[in-house]
Amino acid sequence: MNKLKKMKRYQVGKVWRRESPALVQGRYREFCQCDFDIAGEFDPMIPDAECLKIMCEILSGLQLGDFLIKVNDRRVVDGMFAVCGVPEDKFRTICTSMDKLDKMPWEDVRHEMVAKKGLAPEVADRIGEYVQCHGGISLVEKLSKDPRLSQSQLALQGLGDLKLLFEYLTLFGIAEKISFDLSLARGLDYYTGVIYEAVLLQSPGWAGKEALNVGSVAAGGRYDGLVAQFDPKGHNVPCVGLSIGVERIFCLVEQKMKASGEKVRTIETQVFVATPQRNFLRERLKIITELWDAGIKAEMLYKNNPKLLTQLLYCEKTDIPLMVIIGEQEQKEGVIKLRSVASREEVTINRESLVAEIQKRLSES
Amino acid sequence: MNKLKKMKRYQVGKVWRRESPALVQGRYREFCQCDFDIAGEFDPMIPDAECLKIMCEILSGLQLGDFLIKVNDRRVVDGMFAVCGVPEDKFRTICTSMDKLDKMPWEDVRHEMVAKKGLAPEVADRIGEYVQCHGGISLVEKLSKDPRLSQSQLALQGLGDLKLLFEYLTLFGIAEKISFDLSLARGLDYYTGVIYEAVLLQSPGWAGKEALNVGSVAAGGRYDGLVAQFDPKGHNVPCVGLSIGVERIFCLVEQKMKASGEKVRTIETQVFVATPQRNFLRERLKIITELWDAGIKAEMLYKNNPKLLTQLLYCEKTDIPLMVIIGEQEQKEGVIKLRSVASREEVTINRESLVAEIQKRLSES
Repeated sequence: MNKLKKMKRYQVGKVWRRESPALVQGRYREFCQCDFDIAGEFDPMIPDAECLKIMCEILSGLQLGDFLIKVNDRRVVDGMFAVCGVPEDKFRTICTSMDKLDKMPWEDVRHEMVAKKGLAPEVADRIGEYVQCHGGISLVEKLSKDPRLSQSQLALQGLGDLKLLFEYLTLFGIAEKISFDLSLARGLDYYTGVIYEAVLLQSPGWAGKEALNVGSVAAGGRYDGLVAQFDPKGHNVPCVGLSIGVERIFCLVEQKMKASGEKVRTIETQVFVATPQRNFLRERLKIITELWDAGIKAEMLYKNNPKLLTQLLYCEKTDIPLMVIIGEQEQKEGVIKLRSVASREEVTINRESLVAEIQKRLSES
Repeated sequence: MNKLKKMKRYQVGKVWRRESPALVQGRYREFCQCDFDIAGEFDPMIPDAECLKIMCEILSGLQLGDFLIKVNDRRVVDGMFAVCGVPEDKFRTICTSMDKLDKMPWEDVRHEMVAKKGLAPEVADRIGEYVQCHGGISLVEKLSKDPRLSQSQLALQGLGDLKLLFEYLTLFGIAEKISFDLSLARGLDYYTGVIYEAVLLQSPGWAGKEALNVGSVAAGGRYDGLVAQFDPKGHNVPCVGLSIGVERIFCLVEQKMKASGEKVRTIETQVFVATPQRNFLRERLKIITELWDAGIKAEMLYKNNPKLLTQLLYCEKTDIPLMVIIGEQEQKEGVIKLRSVASREEVTINRESLVAEIQKRLSES
């Protein structure tokens, strides 16, 4: 390993999960994820708060509608299990059941805990009281004084850090987006402190009649033990980070665009250079060179003599907004035709003002 | 396979070569490459010319100094071998020798062909006459009438396409960057038509005393048989493309920046938020929130009470241009200090004009 002890990075790339894929729910085995992580020894909760600020910034920027970030702490989860009377060897399996609370009602989760996993009913009921709590900094303060929960040192440590976190989130101006939620568990074993998960709130405007259940779109937390597991000398590097589910978000953006009648363009071409006549390849090449050299995204068919209809249909299919048309008549008169593909309106302009006119039109649209 | 018969795409990513790496020459087994390819059946040489236009655009944009793109055609190479009298089973091995002409003088390549590969000396001499030819469209025309070379139908086909290519390159305004060079062979077996390779010309301004020999920085060509090899039904998809050697170019850009005294910055941070006092974390968080929300790239140390010297040194080391400093005195007066890290000049400005002032400074720099 290298000697790097501190770093801050983001990465967009492919990641893989070990479990079997469930294509229907959009859970692929190989998928694309955007990760952001801060590694290193720092004063408590400052990098953690920054991760939540970044998550808010990204989700606001994507304009997916209202969202909420649920926050909890693994130490609060474990402390809660301990004071409720969960046997220590059942912590992980009970945690897995709890993780289903975003998809199942408490009654079903309770049934799984008691009937399938052998938890005493009164222990499950005690958990039930906690996992239905959510709120802001006042809930953190209330639970710090909770007669049962405050018996756990672990839970108190977690609650202390959450209090600090909420202070920083208030300064960052995002406290109203964050909900301390005792039902949040997060499946992954390696989390050691604060955990969080962003969920979109239904925005009926574009979700249509069928409610979209996409689960979390971003999640993360503190994982202080993971790096040491991969370091031959076991050196510890505390870490906190977040992941954004790129595929899920793509899927939502696509649905949103479809609902609003916006087309999803697969190419960025701004201008298409066409001709209705034979033997106009050289003229098209000259025009496209001018456009390219001016930084305009232009395209033409790689044919000596394409049919005009083929060229028109290609533009309509791919939603290229503008078409430049050159023919014999235009060449003779030193002009060029500019066609708006959507409105099918055509204007004739001077050949030499072509680039300026296109730049004007593109800046207006 | 899918039914895609036409496409145009670029990709930046990791690629691998089979041969052993030679780290000294910057030839890694795993490296980063930017590829651009056009696949599909089109009229001759239009996509090929576009690839060369793109190569010129990228290399000009990178401002690496003057460059030249050598162009040849595999059919001209094979035709030349045939008319010079190379036995057909020696085509590939002689081609490999010829490929070394950018690193070795003709005499050494000739020696390899004759002494090691058993080519008749007079055959090698005939090749020698051709491989020392380079020029523009006039050389293409001259060789089309060359008594020996014109006996090969293959060579004539290649020369015909090269003539068309040069016409299009002239229309694209890049003919002066292209040199038809009969010594260009390209090692890879799959090329079937036009081949090209971009080389940087020495620019003594920043190359220093030691001449930089980086070999080619971009290359490509036509490969009409490759897709069919991977299609179970052997369907043919003609292709032409180019690759840009990202690592090599990074290395050159770094050398250029070093030579000109420019520092290579590893972070993009524009503003650092600092304090000389204890217990100013909350104030720094408020300021950094304002900057972030205004889209300014800002950073601070994740410490409750960092030392001012540590903060100053961090900015100098990472070349962050601006520093915002907040302390007791400033807070009391409703002002803030803005420090230019390079000149060490400090001005005091009103707290509320902070974002506007920083945006003004950043737009000026």
